[in-house]
Amino acid sequence: MKVYYECGACFLRQSKDAMDLATDDDVLKLELIEEILDFLAKNFNEGASSNKLGSAVHRIIKEKTNCDDPYYKEKIIGNKIALEFLPKIQKLLEKDNTLENYIKIAIVGNILDFGALGLDFNPQNFILSNLKKKLAINDIDKLKKAISNHNRLLYLADNTGEIVFDKLLIEKLREFGLEITVALKEKPILNDACLEDALDVGLNEIANLTTIGTDSVGIVYEEASEEFRKIFDSHDFIISKGLGNYEGLTEIDLENKDVFCLLCVKCSAIAKDIDLEEKDNVLLKL
Amino acid sequence: MKVYYECGACFLRQSKDAMDLATDDDVLKLELIEEILDFLAKNFNEGASSNKLGSAVHRIIKEKTNCDDPYYKEKIIGNKIALEFLPKIQKLLEKDNTLENYIKIAIVGNILDFGALGLDFNPQNFILSNLKKKLAINDIDKLKKAISNHNRLLYLADNTGEIVFDKLLIEKLREFGLEITVALKEKPILNDACLEDALDVGLNEIANLTTIGTDSVGIVYEEASEEFRKIFDSHDFIISKGLGNYEGLTEIDLENKDVFCLLCVKCSAIAKDIDLEEKDNVLLKL
Repeated sequence: MKVYYECGACFLRQSKDAMDLATDDDVLKLELIEEILDFLAKNFNEGASSNKLGSAVHRIIKEKTNCDDPYYKEKIIGNKIALEFLPKIQKLLEKDNTLENYIKIAIVGNILDFGALGLDFNPQNFILSNLKKKLAINDIDKLKKAISNHNRLLYLADNTGEIVFDKLLIEKLREFGLEITVALKEKPILNDACLEDALDVGLNEIANLTTIGTDSVGIVYEEASEEFRKIFDSHDFIISKGLGNYEGLTEIDLENKDVFCLLCVKCSAIAKDIDLEEKDNVLLKL
Repeated sequence: MKVYYECGACFLRQSKDAMDLATDDDVLKLELIEEILDFLAKNFNEGASSNKLGSAVHRIIKEKTNCDDPYYKEKIIGNKIALEFLPKIQKLLEKDNTLENYIKIAIVGNILDFGALGLDFNPQNFILSNLKKKLAINDIDKLKKAISNHNRLLYLADNTGEIVFDKLLIEKLREFGLEITVALKEKPILNDACLEDALDVGLNEIANLTTIGTDSVGIVYEEASEEFRKIFDSHDFIISKGLGNYEGLTEIDLENKDVFCLLCVKCSAIAKDIDLEEKDNVLLKL
């Protein structure tokens, strides 16, 4: 995805959030904002990739603050809360065990921000109302067709916490005989899931795990490791979670791959890009 | 006030808001964000004045969008709603007609954002709870002393809507025999009150009205008109409303002037600068 004008304010807001988590040194934070403004002045132009810029900004913050994982606590809490919710969610899936319901649960995982919502948040009503909500784009038939046409799936994970919900969908997808590889981030970026977060929730028990070889916001093909690029190239069926991966995949020539994005439209830029409203939930074939 | 690191994200957020009010042209908005990032990369440095940068950013937006008053509708609604509330507020002042209560009412005016809160908002509970709140800094004795030591007062206004509440305080201050001049903005900036907004609520009936001769966020001495600078220089007693004026006044050598700031601490940068908490209300002698 190319940057929209709204991304400017969002990059600075995200930078402030990440800095506040990474350091208490206000002098350093002022220097950092200056450096980020310089970087964006040079690189925030029509046609720039939104997730490339976002990745670069977060790397500047991590390097300068000497904090390689600003969202460390948030991620641990994210997995913990998601695991606590798991029994309730499994009950909901017992009542409706269609693939579409598993898809919706995985999207709800993308909406819930466990770090932000805190330990006291009771998500049951939230989850129930979102499961009742119609998907604004629902390419479930195309997804079913892809499932029957392929025997291997590459699953691009997004946030920690959310991966607990992804695990349910991945287990469901395995029933169709798919061999599934889940791609995590190599190094921390935002609250995205890394290998250790995936091990924490036992994703290794049901899928092959790999990393994209770097810490980009979503996929940036040329920044991924050679190993991951080989995995990516060899898969013709991809399920992608969240905004960052959508931003990245829309910048890659996907040739004839069957690529499906599961996400909640959390910002106006993505809403414009998909031609939808904010807060819409989608299962979209790219 | 010098810029804090938090101001970076705030400038971009404010820019987005102002642009969204000024134009629907997304291509132009992207160009504008690029221009604002360039401007900030060059000028957002340690020691820069926060309100000078803010003024420049809003001028870029007004000039490029060819919209000289993005907050036009918001301002009209602001005055309208404030005037509708007036009888309720007058009743509260009948119960407690001390100077301190008038001061608190004027500060509540700075908290209420009529444009944002909309026509349906019932402010009574909000006002009552804020009047009960202790001022975090309360230089009322110094203010009373200044009132008895001076016979002329310069009152620096802030937002449209809020000026309805200022009028009540100005009427109260006139009981002490002060000749009062209220300074408005010469041209629109944010939802700040201009001359026509002041006339709209009848401020001219109780005070001399003037403008600062420009459209800066708060006072920037060297950008004000010569006429206003003469007025400013000739007054040794000033009451200033809101954040922008605080940001500006703290950049001016005030010599031995008695300058009082009435404001609600609406952001973390101002909170740090005054060494207070966000949401604190203050009557502060500079």
